[in-house]
Amino acid sequence: MSDHSNPLRDIEDRRLPRIAGPCGLVLFGVTGDLSRKKVMPAIYDLANRGLLPPGFSLVGFARRDWADQDFAQIVRDAVREHARTPFREEVWNQLSEGFRFVPGEFDDDVAFEQLRRTVEELDELRGTAGNMAFYLAIPPAFFGAVVGQLKEHGLADPEADSWRRVVVEKPFGHDLESARELNEVLESVFPADSVFRIDHYLGKETVQNILAMRFANNMFEPIWNSNYVDHVQITMAEDIGIGGRAGYYDGIGAARDVIQNHLLQLMALVGMEEPISFEAEALRMEKQKLLASVVLPSRLDLTTARGQYAAGWQGGEKVIGFLEEEGIRRTSKTETYAAITLHVDTRRWAGVPFYLRAGKRLGRRVTEVAVVFKRAPHLPFHETATEELTQNALVIRVQPDEGMTIRFGSKVPGTAMEIRDVSMDFAYGGSFTEASAEAYERLILDVLLGDPPLFPRHEEVELSWKILDPVLEHWARKGKPEAYPAGTWGPESADKMLARDGRTWRRP
Amino acid sequence: MSDHSNPLRDIEDRRLPRIAGPCGLVLFGVTGDLSRKKVMPAIYDLANRGLLPPGFSLVGFARRDWADQDFAQIVRDAVREHARTPFREEVWNQLSEGFRFVPGEFDDDVAFEQLRRTVEELDELRGTAGNMAFYLAIPPAFFGAVVGQLKEHGLADPEADSWRRVVVEKPFGHDLESARELNEVLESVFPADSVFRIDHYLGKETVQNILAMRFANNMFEPIWNSNYVDHVQITMAEDIGIGGRAGYYDGIGAARDVIQNHLLQLMALVGMEEPISFEAEALRMEKQKLLASVVLPSRLDLTTARGQYAAGWQGGEKVIGFLEEEGIRRTSKTETYAAITLHVDTRRWAGVPFYLRAGKRLGRRVTEVAVVFKRAPHLPFHETATEELTQNALVIRVQPDEGMTIRFGSKVPGTAMEIRDVSMDFAYGGSFTEASAEAYERLILDVLLGDPPLFPRHEEVELSWKILDPVLEHWARKGKPEAYPAGTWGPESADKMLARDGRTWRRP
Repeated sequence: MSDHSNPLRDIEDRRLPRIAGPCGLVLFGVTGDLSRKKVMPAIYDLANRGLLPPGFSLVGFARRDWADQDFAQIVRDAVREHARTPFREEVWNQLSEGFRFVPGEFDDDVAFEQLRRTVEELDELRGTAGNMAFYLAIPPAFFGAVVGQLKEHGLADPEADSWRRVVVEKPFGHDLESARELNEVLESVFPADSVFRIDHYLGKETVQNILAMRFANNMFEPIWNSNYVDHVQITMAEDIGIGGRAGYYDGIGAARDVIQNHLLQLMALVGMEEPISFEAEALRMEKQKLLASVVLPSRLDLTTARGQYAAGWQGGEKVIGFLEEEGIRRTSKTETYAAITLHVDTRRWAGVPFYLRAGKRLGRRVTEVAVVFKRAPHLPFHETATEELTQNALVIRVQPDEGMTIRFGSKVPGTAMEIRDVSMDFAYGGSFTEASAEAYERLILDVLLGDPPLFPRHEEVELSWKILDPVLEHWARKGKPEAYPAGTWGPESADKMLARDGRTWRRP
Repeated sequence: MSDHSNPLRDIEDRRLPRIAGPCGLVLFGVTGDLSRKKVMPAIYDLANRGLLPPGFSLVGFARRDWADQDFAQIVRDAVREHARTPFREEVWNQLSEGFRFVPGEFDDDVAFEQLRRTVEELDELRGTAGNMAFYLAIPPAFFGAVVGQLKEHGLADPEADSWRRVVVEKPFGHDLESARELNEVLESVFPADSVFRIDHYLGKETVQNILAMRFANNMFEPIWNSNYVDHVQITMAEDIGIGGRAGYYDGIGAARDVIQNHLLQLMALVGMEEPISFEAEALRMEKQKLLASVVLPSRLDLTTARGQYAAGWQGGEKVIGFLEEEGIRRTSKTETYAAITLHVDTRRWAGVPFYLRAGKRLGRRVTEVAVVFKRAPHLPFHETATEELTQNALVIRVQPDEGMTIRFGSKVPGTAMEIRDVSMDFAYGGSFTEASAEAYERLILDVLLGDPPLFPRHEEVELSWKILDPVLEHWARKGKPEAYPAGTWGPESADKMLARDGRTWRRP
């Protein structure tokens, strides 16, 4: 499918740059952070890298009394501030010729009629060939209204040989039921394979590299199973607090914010069986199988933990607690730290717990997947000589310092046979001269190419909520989350949760 | 055994420094390179590290008209020039109080009688407790004469509760027959476990680390077999020529000089099964089993290669060829490069060739073991995206830059799923604050401790010759070795030898 939708793409040699065919993008929510910090800069960077078609067009839609030039100025400011690549006037000039702005509210038929005309004009004037992506950088509550309007005004239905796609961002609902409703709203208008859910984690190089690492090599897959793996830890630690996101975060919390999407997607990639290819369909099938095999332990009080950051010290500065943050209810029970234990009922993973944790105001910013191996079944060393030997681990660092580390036991120099943990390291940045693109560049280009392997489908979203819902309900019945001082590694209950299994969290 | 022989050694905690008990060492061949560059400096370094007993005594024996002070001066010069640790006057003063010199020839009964008296005096004066090692840093042709004298003058037989040991260096013969004769000479006087054959490669940290790496971890051993390993390359490349060793080297050659001992010992450690412990007996048993399982391919003309360096360029300098070296016969057929293919008839290694090569005047000085893995049985990638992906490899660097490297495939940053080889690295030097002792320190201390795991026994020596003899005979029947220009990676025939198997040598 992906290859058909883009005749310019050379399927014989994937190393040729993949350039999007004729197309445009309509951006809803042009004044929001997401648009200004991520979408607009990524579009410019793609143009700068020569990966957009010459007639590429960008239409802004918002409740603002702007002309095209005002919109162009907004984009220019965003690009100057946030783009990854240098600003080049000639690239900008060509790109901004395709900028249009349509003012209006989401329930304004006249505005959507004007949008339809604008899209048609661009088709004639700039050769966008009827191919248009609608990027909903707006709150999910408005998705229904917007896609309804797109349908009503004939914008959702492509002519023959052209395409219409819709792009949405998390949160994909706040539980299984709302996710289903949201998916129904979107897919009642757009076919499933025209709905692109952006999980920007899946656009990161190291996340994609999990697939390369596992399936392009012959060293790792043989030990990637319960015979050798003791457990898996997936961590997303942030050092920042909620910042200006109080309105979004309160009532959402760490599990809904990142475990439902980023961490469960990471788990799916680490745990899934080998797909028959990296085409979207094949990849999705394996991810879905993994997510469908996940089961919660029976005692959620013993196998999950949550916390709320209290005042503390971070980077040498005193910081306030979650309940003191502006915009947070003083009685909020929203967790800023969540840890859960998951089992996978497959032959490969039976008996291997996956521990997922995410939190704000933790010791350090780091996202990583640590596959921790069992100790050797027998150590032909004197016991005391292996005191400082723990367990082998293969750690995939997603951010920052993307790369991979293997921890293993090595002989300590000296006359005795003493073994101690050492590390060998692969740094993504140090090994390639190729620049690592920003995740949004990769993902927006994939939307324009119609290449969906990196986008979760509604089945995956719903399976993720199915896993999380019982945990969220369990927590909802309990009182407040346990406080933990900012700058530490989370609540004591999370340490106890692992201690019950005889394990400890990594301190990355 | 090792523990009984040294009451000071704490078997409960091997991390305590292992300090030799009361003892002394008699050095034959005090004026040779080996004594001055390796043995004397190592003895001082051990003393400096506090690992020798306070009464440790060193007796020099040579055909020189020296007094004790002359000998002390020789040792002092050697230590000042070659010791690894700083020179400390107080350490030197205590150590040199135990220096004695006995002048004489190897057939001189009076001299050996004096040696006996000297050893007895040291026993009384310095409390060496009758424990004495005899280090034969002399040509093998004289071993028989010296051990005969030691026996005759009662020096080879320890009193109850004390020990007498003999230390010899390679070459351990030049073929199976001569090796057997040599072993008989030594073991007719000293029991097998009192004969210490020094293979200084086995004293190197990384060589010992092969054992730690394989058996202290759970990540490597599961893939350490013919299911996953394609082949193994063991390389000892030197950039130097024969230097001042013409007299020794002509008629010996690369195979006898280093493959028989260093490379086959490395192969034994890489290929052997897990020993039940690291005690000498258990380790030796596994090494012997491996060596006894080695078989040569039937067509030695296709599976071996040899060469002789011709004039060429090395490090920006023009260097002469082997046949132009001083002291080399112009008609010499001695090989300065040798490569052989070996098979191992065990369940673990059936079908996995071990390629061993050693040479002088090659591109770079490096000794390494490369375990090269099969490609993944299936690559779910487009073919062209894996063009720059070769095979996974685990490379143990023995010298220089001791450490380990894993080569594996990683995704190239960019929008396409392209895979390329990358490396992750562990540098021994960068990971430990503990200083890495010189191999001779380790080995001499082991001799004094009576700890024999790192010393090859006569069985291993004879098995090695059994492997090499047919190759050497095959080569002896052929003409001159193929010339290769100095500074290259050996003769073309060596490349062809691997090409026949569809493989290539690493260019480390």
